[in-house]
Amino acid sequence: MSGPLAELEARFRRLHGIEGALAVLTWDQAVWMPSGGAPARGLQIATLRRLAHDILTSPELGEWLEEAAASPVDDPWRRANLREMRRLRTLAVAVDPALVEAAAEATTRAELVWRRAREDSDFALLRPHLEEVVGLERERARQLGAALGLAPYDALLGTYQPGLSDRDLEPLFAPLADRLPDLVDDLLARQQPPRRPRGPFPRAAQKALAERLMRRLGFDFAHGRLDESTHPFCGGTPTDIRITTRYDEADATTGLMAVLHETGHALYEAGLPRDWLDQPVGAARGMAVHESQSLLVEMQVCRSRPFLAFLSGELERAFGPDPALATDNLVRLYNHVARGFIRVDADELTYPLHVILRWRLERALIEGGLEPAELPAAWNEGMRELLGVTPPDDRRGVLQDIHWPVGLFGYFPCYTVGALLAAQLFRAVRAALPDLPRALAAGEFGDLLGWLREKVHGQGSRPEFAELVREASGAPLSCDAFFAHLAERYDVALGSPAA
Amino acid sequence: MSGPLAELEARFRRLHGIEGALAVLTWDQAVWMPSGGAPARGLQIATLRRLAHDILTSPELGEWLEEAAASPVDDPWRRANLREMRRLRTLAVAVDPALVEAAAEATTRAELVWRRAREDSDFALLRPHLEEVVGLERERARQLGAALGLAPYDALLGTYQPGLSDRDLEPLFAPLADRLPDLVDDLLARQQPPRRPRGPFPRAAQKALAERLMRRLGFDFAHGRLDESTHPFCGGTPTDIRITTRYDEADATTGLMAVLHETGHALYEAGLPRDWLDQPVGAARGMAVHESQSLLVEMQVCRSRPFLAFLSGELERAFGPDPALATDNLVRLYNHVARGFIRVDADELTYPLHVILRWRLERALIEGGLEPAELPAAWNEGMRELLGVTPPDDRRGVLQDIHWPVGLFGYFPCYTVGALLAAQLFRAVRAALPDLPRALAAGEFGDLLGWLREKVHGQGSRPEFAELVREASGAPLSCDAFFAHLAERYDVALGSPAA
Repeated sequence: MSGPLAELEARFRRLHGIEGALAVLTWDQAVWMPSGGAPARGLQIATLRRLAHDILTSPELGEWLEEAAASPVDDPWRRANLREMRRLRTLAVAVDPALVEAAAEATTRAELVWRRAREDSDFALLRPHLEEVVGLERERARQLGAALGLAPYDALLGTYQPGLSDRDLEPLFAPLADRLPDLVDDLLARQQPPRRPRGPFPRAAQKALAERLMRRLGFDFAHGRLDESTHPFCGGTPTDIRITTRYDEADATTGLMAVLHETGHALYEAGLPRDWLDQPVGAARGMAVHESQSLLVEMQVCRSRPFLAFLSGELERAFGPDPALATDNLVRLYNHVARGFIRVDADELTYPLHVILRWRLERALIEGGLEPAELPAAWNEGMRELLGVTPPDDRRGVLQDIHWPVGLFGYFPCYTVGALLAAQLFRAVRAALPDLPRALAAGEFGDLLGWLREKVHGQGSRPEFAELVREASGAPLSCDAFFAHLAERYDVALGSPAA
Repeated sequence: MSGPLAELEARFRRLHGIEGALAVLTWDQAVWMPSGGAPARGLQIATLRRLAHDILTSPELGEWLEEAAASPVDDPWRRANLREMRRLRTLAVAVDPALVEAAAEATTRAELVWRRAREDSDFALLRPHLEEVVGLERERARQLGAALGLAPYDALLGTYQPGLSDRDLEPLFAPLADRLPDLVDDLLARQQPPRRPRGPFPRAAQKALAERLMRRLGFDFAHGRLDESTHPFCGGTPTDIRITTRYDEADATTGLMAVLHETGHALYEAGLPRDWLDQPVGAARGMAVHESQSLLVEMQVCRSRPFLAFLSGELERAFGPDPALATDNLVRLYNHVARGFIRVDADELTYPLHVILRWRLERALIEGGLEPAELPAAWNEGMRELLGVTPPDDRRGVLQDIHWPVGLFGYFPCYTVGALLAAQLFRAVRAALPDLPRALAAGEFGDLLGWLREKVHGQGSRPEFAELVREASGAPLSCDAFFAHLAERYDVALGSPAA
């Protein structure tokens, strides 16, 4: 192959090399870097991001894309690759470079201030910085939207989950906002409190069990690692995946579930199409799809009774017998519902309500209907409406998330779209694999992984979002499978909790 | 500041960012990377090297350098920085890019084959690959030499230690080749065999002691780490230094000395001029100077009786009493001389002989007076002449080092030039700090480090090599201090061993 396509693929291969390097740098920063290394690391990361941006915005890339558009491309992968290249190019050239730079500097400052503001529960400290960031993000959203022919907030949504728009979110989120509060009421009145496991759980034993479970789920340690960091994440590249977690020696159950969640992300990366890994079409289909894979593993599989029966045996083998590690109690423990203030601690029933609050607020922030100064009041009002609780301070309220200070607007919806998609995909895989509950109870995940590889992981970014959802799950995305899942798991009535 | 100098400094700052990223990538590769991550890492590293090369060879960089040359620069640091920029630019543009690429590919292949060839002691397997590499390196040396106005081998030497030429090496190496064999003879007849320490030495205790000693020497763990890898090295960047070692639970003495050696490198990096860290003038002055800093710490300080008296106490506190850990025995153990086959295991008397053998052979290879096919015979003949032993096989002979298969010609002399410079610098620091032996015996290194920071570390690449040697040690480089050091440490007669 030669000509513009070959030139483009070579250039995007280089971009992939830079992105892989960035993944190692950010992983190391979270896991090993000494505090004094921060300024040098900042320069390294900013330099590589700048070089990646230079590649995407170079004039010759634009010329090759125009030349490539002139001739038809038969191979569907190559055609989709060209589409993804165009998308990345459009995003890169849409925004004034001076604005990109100003936003990078403002968010770096705002992140630092946010850490102090959260600690001191002092919104006033963050406010001027957040105002600056919101102002820049409004302008960025406007420029992106103008280039893409989209409304500003849709343009931001699309940077995280291409193909997802606010028009799609309305019919997904309205039933959740409508029904979940009553479901939570119903459940809180009925659920039995779980017994807490007795510790201590030595860190080395927790790590050994986590690695054993990762292996069972299909994680290949020749192509990845498990390490520790303050916040669990999945980083690295598809052939060298870096999962992190944290261990609490008083409680083995939380760190373990974080590992299983991240393993869901990792299996997606590991299953991406081998022949296209260095090209845009070989990347994951978006953040909502990514979250569907971690939540399918965590919420659909690992918090299910069959899996918890298997896990109970593993936990008792690792830490000795304990009534709290029996299956029935694990089911209660891992599916306990509570009206909390903190999103990242939320269960699967209240989590969407936390997201819907943020979605409403950030959309209004970007569209101009809400100013940062109004955020604390609007936040607390939304918490009362959706979750029936009022945060006692801004630390446990509007200051809890890093997203807005660092300029991530349009990201929050991905969590809940991912949860809905996870339920819908799991419904499809259960239909395809009738033996699945027995396999999960036996700790056998091969057939499940095979299905996910074929339908989701191995598709990379070849299909667009809606196409992937339809092809893999057999239907457009809706709340139906999610509500059915909740009804089954929590034994709650659908739609009418009083019935 | 604006104009060409500002543009140049901004561009070299970016280069520094890329080089820092490369340092993290290569460290991670040696310490944590799973085997399956190698191809992706290869792409990341090749991509960043290419981007660095593109920066150095860009037309605008050449134009700015020409513009900058038109006006005088008063500040000596800025002037030296410009000189170093020019040097890097000249090296980058001197060689045909196709040759650079061919050499990168040939050395990658040759390195893989070398690993098998060494394992199987099969020189014939490596030979065609080594012939290809030597052919390409001869041409690279010729092109470099043409651009620099130097003989081909001098051009290669200068890429590792700028300012060092073969004309300098002759008068340094001739006395070593002449006198060391007799000194070794003399010593072998007299030295007492050391007692081996009883193990086991738990790895965690070895690591704790290593970190404690690093701290004593002045290593700041807010700006660095100690980890494990197959081969000890010092990587990272001046504000985030990554030392590695390996631990043998049967013998704590070797891993510990490797850490002390690498700490010498680390202190050099940590002491580079803070204001110029992101510029060429802020980098270390060359590989021979770098080696002088590791060898000053290892050979001059840490294998000396005063330090070993201190270390004896530390070892017994960490591992319990053992007659082998008494000072007298440590002095024998850490200064034991042997005629071995392997360079990296050699003591400080035989090490230069190993280097001189390689220097003679690689110079002849580059100049065309020797062909790779003749190497095994020439190697064994040289070993007989210089060290009085004949390797039983090529694994313990010509195949032992990675340098030539990966295209490192002109590097070996840096080890021994570094050893000579270490002795000469230590002579100067002893004259300046009369109390030094007492301080070393007390484990106090502050004054020593202060002297090194002022005279060597903090100078960066401001002075040229010969200037740095003269300014720091008070004399041009010679063998005198090294021979005096040997005479003192081993109690051997200088020049006339029979005397």
